[in-house]
Amino acid sequence: MNRPAALSGFPELLPGPRIVEQRVVEQLSRAFELHGYGSISTRAVEPLEQLLRKGETSKEVYVLRRLQAEEADSTDSGLGLHFDLTVPLARYVLENAGKLQFPFKRYQIQPCWRGERPQEGRYREFWQADIDIVDRDDLSSHYEVELPQVISDALKPLPLPRMTMHVNNRKLSQGFYRGVGIDDPMAAIRIIDKLDKIGPDGVAGLLEETLGATADQIRLCLELAQINSTDESFVDRVRRLKVTDPMLEEGLEELAAVVGAAAEQDPGLVVADLSIARGLDYYTGTVYETFMSGYESLGSVCSGGRYDNLATDGKNRYPGVGLSIGVSRMIIPLLNRNVLAATRDVPTCVLVALPDAESRRDCDRIAATLRGRGIACEVAPAAQKYGKQIRFAQRRGIPYVWFPDSGEVRDIRSGEQSAADVHTWAPPREDLRPGILRRD
Amino acid sequence: MNRPAALSGFPELLPGPRIVEQRVVEQLSRAFELHGYGSISTRAVEPLEQLLRKGETSKEVYVLRRLQAEEADSTDSGLGLHFDLTVPLARYVLENAGKLQFPFKRYQIQPCWRGERPQEGRYREFWQADIDIVDRDDLSSHYEVELPQVISDALKPLPLPRMTMHVNNRKLSQGFYRGVGIDDPMAAIRIIDKLDKIGPDGVAGLLEETLGATADQIRLCLELAQINSTDESFVDRVRRLKVTDPMLEEGLEELAAVVGAAAEQDPGLVVADLSIARGLDYYTGTVYETFMSGYESLGSVCSGGRYDNLATDGKNRYPGVGLSIGVSRMIIPLLNRNVLAATRDVPTCVLVALPDAESRRDCDRIAATLRGRGIACEVAPAAQKYGKQIRFAQRRGIPYVWFPDSGEVRDIRSGEQSAADVHTWAPPREDLRPGILRRD
Repeated sequence: MNRPAALSGFPELLPGPRIVEQRVVEQLSRAFELHGYGSISTRAVEPLEQLLRKGETSKEVYVLRRLQAEEADSTDSGLGLHFDLTVPLARYVLENAGKLQFPFKRYQIQPCWRGERPQEGRYREFWQADIDIVDRDDLSSHYEVELPQVISDALKPLPLPRMTMHVNNRKLSQGFYRGVGIDDPMAAIRIIDKLDKIGPDGVAGLLEETLGATADQIRLCLELAQINSTDESFVDRVRRLKVTDPMLEEGLEELAAVVGAAAEQDPGLVVADLSIARGLDYYTGTVYETFMSGYESLGSVCSGGRYDNLATDGKNRYPGVGLSIGVSRMIIPLLNRNVLAATRDVPTCVLVALPDAESRRDCDRIAATLRGRGIACEVAPAAQKYGKQIRFAQRRGIPYVWFPDSGEVRDIRSGEQSAADVHTWAPPREDLRPGILRRD
Repeated sequence: MNRPAALSGFPELLPGPRIVEQRVVEQLSRAFELHGYGSISTRAVEPLEQLLRKGETSKEVYVLRRLQAEEADSTDSGLGLHFDLTVPLARYVLENAGKLQFPFKRYQIQPCWRGERPQEGRYREFWQADIDIVDRDDLSSHYEVELPQVISDALKPLPLPRMTMHVNNRKLSQGFYRGVGIDDPMAAIRIIDKLDKIGPDGVAGLLEETLGATADQIRLCLELAQINSTDESFVDRVRRLKVTDPMLEEGLEELAAVVGAAAEQDPGLVVADLSIARGLDYYTGTVYETFMSGYESLGSVCSGGRYDNLATDGKNRYPGVGLSIGVSRMIIPLLNRNVLAATRDVPTCVLVALPDAESRRDCDRIAATLRGRGIACEVAPAAQKYGKQIRFAQRRGIPYVWFPDSGEVRDIRSGEQSAADVHTWAPPREDLRPGILRRD
């Protein structure tokens, strides 16, 4: 077999970078669980009719068939790989509604697949970390306040570039456009969503052409989109535009609660940004987009919002609010640029040197004792000269070598060597497991 | 949308059972890392030509295509979902050989897919946990001794039924059959592999028909297959059959080393069982199969062996030895029978009661302080009567409710309530995170 080539759009990590990914996923899981979110894991496949409910993504879906399936055999037809974790959540909630406790708080960290053209930050296979709260019939708006707090706790301990979460509220936008006199506020939202790409003039043109908006209406829409603040001051700036609408008022109040609580907990993380529209029709309250400082061109690395009509089974409605961290989008570009690296390439903390082949069982016992105390170790693969065994450790970044004959342990970075008891010796906390190193 | 139905062969877990699965995967990962195995995660897809190298599994492969792919567009054709973690490992090693350190020890816990007819213990999507050691050119046989020790450390702390790992050695079998005078020892291995299904008479018939074996040869083959022992005594029993062959001697020595070391570390786990054949041609040394006491009908839950010809790139050969735990096969039947359950259904340890809606921010601060000390908690969703809030906790198995107004915490299982300081109070260790409960 010749050396296989990498598959474009299906990134894989070497053992060192994979340790970084593991630490990120561990930290996210830990933070989500501290906030009471339970893990679920859904199957990779969904029925096509579920995946295609939002028509716009249909061309990105990977469809499955069994290689040897008979033409007439349809048991496997109609399955595709999920392209996000929201469609599987909606289906899981409906399927298990009778067995779940509501409000249902779950997190889910899994790969998703989209047959898109690959580019930096966009992959055909990518990991997402989602948190959602789904309730039955009604969902309290304080969960829209909670989500940025969870994300703050999840991301703050990681050595990532600074994050800014831009939030808006669908009721605020829709109410404002309605208050301005635009007949189809959702259409206006879809146009405002293009502001980044086509600029204010382009948006103005579209608002006029598509919706017949007047110059005054267009001016107000563009002024609203320019308002942003890291505290509740945006409320007054909106009020100064003198547009009134009951839904606008609700939206202002909800957004002020989100921004106010976030300003107290993690100042600078959350910005009220009234240009944030998010194209998808299904949002009905707060919407979130998050950018990584210096990496804005990747797009949002943590997005979501409130959706009142995610799922319904006829009898009950299941409104929810959720945020999705693009784990691959966030960390693969940082790994590729060597901004993040692992402190070593293997979990091993101690290499037990092997004086001669006959000592292997004795060395295994030393290793087993250290492992029993939570210290990762392995015995050298062969009884080579100690210089070679030390180089074996160096090449992998293993910090300590244990010499069974002298009963000493050496920190091979500093060269310090001292007598050690296998029942009491412990490495400094930061050496116990490999961690993440930030290089700037 | 009507209530969706489960998909046969694609098992999904409710939040409680999912906690059991999480704890199992955590424990396996922890044990593997303590032994110096690093994690890798490979993409879900492999080129079809890789997947079909072993022709026998071709009918089980799920093939992908993009829903909107043009007929002529072949960029996505030729991809299938992996059906095990060995094919991806072989490809990963060849692709990254220049960047890996050998011997390369890795573990990998991921789903695999096979389009088989689903039955208990056999699923279309299932999780495997694999450990392998791959070296360049030569692989020391002490790694064949190491693997059962790693598996023992991985499984022993879990409340699973007793495991018995049956081991044999391909050199022993091949050498013995050759020593007996059978021309095609691999053909004999494939026939002996059917012993469980067709019995000694069936095997005798096939050995005669297919290989022209004499009555004496058949008797020796069947006698070998009856030998088993939990210590090195099998060696003498084989020698008493008076068959001599240099490869047989090598195999006896290697198998004695595996069984001897295991008998010291975890008596009863490993049995030398000379009937174990494993059908696959690519094994060249130790072979392993593991059965769960009372659940033998599920088949082996942890299998593998040594393969000297897993991968070669023309210049180098990469021999390896590996074991694969069938995580889904092992735990889903136990979950379905309620033998294993989670101690509670959510990660939350403390519910902070909400005296009134205005106190939410104060309650959030209490929760944040507890979380900062590693205690998972959430604030009650609404300021209902305390009785209702306590029932909210009970339904989820949350053990503690914190009352902010009185500054007291109640263990709602015992009803005990006492004053507590948010900066110092901690639950007993076993309540901190949900664990696994064994019910027999």
